Amino acid sequence: MKALVLAGGSGTRFWPVSRRQRPKQLLSLEGGPSLLQATVDRLQPLVDPSQVWVCTTVKLSAQVRQQLPLVPEEQVLAEPAGRNTAPAIGWSLHSMPADERDDVVLILPADHRIEDREAFLETLETAERIAREDDRVMTLGVQPTRPDTGYGYLELGPLIEPETGLRQVVQYKEKPDQATADRFVESGDYLWNAGIFLFRAGRLLELLQVHQPDLAQGLGEIEQRPDRIVELYPRLPSISIDFGVMEHLDEVFTLPLDCGWSDLGSWEALAEILPRDENGNVTKGDVVSIDCHGSVLFADAGTVAALGVDGLVIVKTGDAVLVVPKDRTQEIRKIVAALEDRGLTRLL
Amino acid sequence: MKALVLAGGSGTRFWPVSRRQRPKQLLSLEGGPSLLQATVDRLQPLVDPSQVWVCTTVKLSAQVRQQLPLVPEEQVLAEPAGRNTAPAIGWSLHSMPADERDDVVLILPADHRIEDREAFLETLETAERIAREDDRVMTLGVQPTRPDTGYGYLELGPLIEPETGLRQVVQYKEKPDQATADRFVESGDYLWNAGIFLFRAGRLLELLQVHQPDLAQGLGEIEQRPDRIVELYPRLPSISIDFGVMEHLDEVFTLPLDCGWSDLGSWEALAEILPRDENGNVTKGDVVSIDCHGSVLFADAGTVAALGVDGLVIVKTGDAVLVVPKDRTQEIRKIVAALEDRGLTRLL
Repeated sequence: MKALVLAGGSGTRFWPVSRRQRPKQLLSLEGGPSLLQATVDRLQPLVDPSQVWVCTTVKLSAQVRQQLPLVPEEQVLAEPAGRNTAPAIGWSLHSMPADERDDVVLILPADHRIEDREAFLETLETAERIAREDDRVMTLGVQPTRPDTGYGYLELGPLIEPETGLRQVVQYKEKPDQATADRFVESGDYLWNAGIFLFRAGRLLELLQVHQPDLAQGLGEIEQRPDRIVELYPRLPSISIDFGVMEHLDEVFTLPLDCGWSDLGSWEALAEILPRDENGNVTKGDVVSIDCHGSVLFADAGTVAALGVDGLVIVKTGDAVLVVPKDRTQEIRKIVAALEDRGLTRLL
Repeated sequence: MKALVLAGGSGTRFWPVSRRQRPKQLLSLEGGPSLLQATVDRLQPLVDPSQVWVCTTVKLSAQVRQQLPLVPEEQVLAEPAGRNTAPAIGWSLHSMPADERDDVVLILPADHRIEDREAFLETLETAERIAREDDRVMTLGVQPTRPDTGYGYLELGPLIEPETGLRQVVQYKEKPDQATADRFVESGDYLWNAGIFLFRAGRLLELLQVHQPDLAQGLGEIEQRPDRIVELYPRLPSISIDFGVMEHLDEVFTLPLDCGWSDLGSWEALAEILPRDENGNVTKGDVVSIDCHGSVLFADAGTVAALGVDGLVIVKTGDAVLVVPKDRTQEIRKIVAALEDRGLTRLL
């Protein structure tokens, strides 16, 4: 099996630690390897680093190569521009050797966290077998642990294989409201959409041809004229693989992943995972806290000193500090937008 | 008139901006000149810089000289050790030319803020005349603007000179509780003790002789053997001028100062003085605030970004950030103590 790691993201949710030049997937938010490194590491022995492809952006490619010395350099693909996941996946599949298109490819994001590696690999192995033997398009949905309104959901059909848990995906559901999320999770018939797919490379290229002919044609042009990629790539239609392909298919299959998955979508989400002190604080780096409760105190450089604060996220880098209540970390983008408005690009 | 500026303080209340090597008096908390520079500047034309003496510590003397280029270098006195105000004043008076001991000396702290310079100078001028003509020991008390429990108070006797407001100090009162402070301020018979004094140099040396004979003797030894100051100075009794001399005197006189005085005793006190934005925030430096209210956002280096915080003090330097509720800034010393315990002396 090959793996294609999608590592082109450039979110703002971990600002000020994450920056355009150093987005979340390149960070070591818990200490140790970066999320990208952990993503590649945990695939072994199922996928050897020599079989890993990474799709990232021109800006990030040098850092990605540096972080992944075991992945062959030419397999770190650098998009000239971000055009969402369908072009990234299509282009990456085109970049793989044409005579290996019968291989199953695992597509996965570079910036998720998985606690139970054994469970993850076991599910992957089963999914690979199904994708290979039955030529099925597989997506792995995450067994929901709470009625979260921040994720898309996969609606499941009846059980096909009791021994593996294989089911068909009946429908993709956008992020629901709370009542709907409650209903989804209670029913047991929904999984979180985690953006993890498995299929034969050739199969997906055929499906792109059918459902995104413009994209397929653009990718063909790039294959003919790789020297013109900087001009051609930005013209590819910008569309996600879910919306552009998966939702059009009559048959997508899924296995439930139950492996302590988190997309680490915010400082608050990170805080849920990291160990806490006796006052419920999560601290990292050089932190002095006195009479603080339920806070995230994160010193990426220098010292964070806090006294008497409650439910705050405080993050210090060398050049900036962020202070925000834990339940408003979704609004960090407003700060990034304000910095951008004021031309403080060195902080972005 | 001569002036003696006491500039040896090393408080922690403006940490992390203030440090042992850069205490409050050397800082420019509002922008512009430092508190020390402002203290010397505002004495003109009443006291020319050539008539200014500064008593500071060995550690700080180079910075003090650099900040006050118009004050003769030899008039910046460097204590080998801090021994409180009575030794500092006594030693400084001894260091002045012996044939000028009939001059009136104004003693004042280096780290206070005065808004109405004209009013200040006018009161000083009157006080100097009284100290000189009547050889009186004068202290200037600040007209209270609120029943503050953070200051000592001077209890006043009956009015002596209606045209100047001259009154005798009946008693020194330590920091009162709230009910007492209310009563003090309501009565109109109390002033805040601001640590500002005027007297003939010779007069104070006589009083030291009477009330602090050990100190007077120690100072005499230092005058005889200035080469041994490093050994002798630390042996001087450590005592304040209030407690060691003023409270023993039968007659201390005062004029009320009404000049927008503040001792800038905390970040909260500084916030009271600085201009506020439409949400009641005080900001300095590179600050992005979104939906913040009643907070102090102070970027000494780098950027402070805050969203949705209320009543907080956030102070960032290059190497540290402090976050504390505005009404708990008195507890900053706990943080400094914790840093000391952990051996983080570079932050002190």
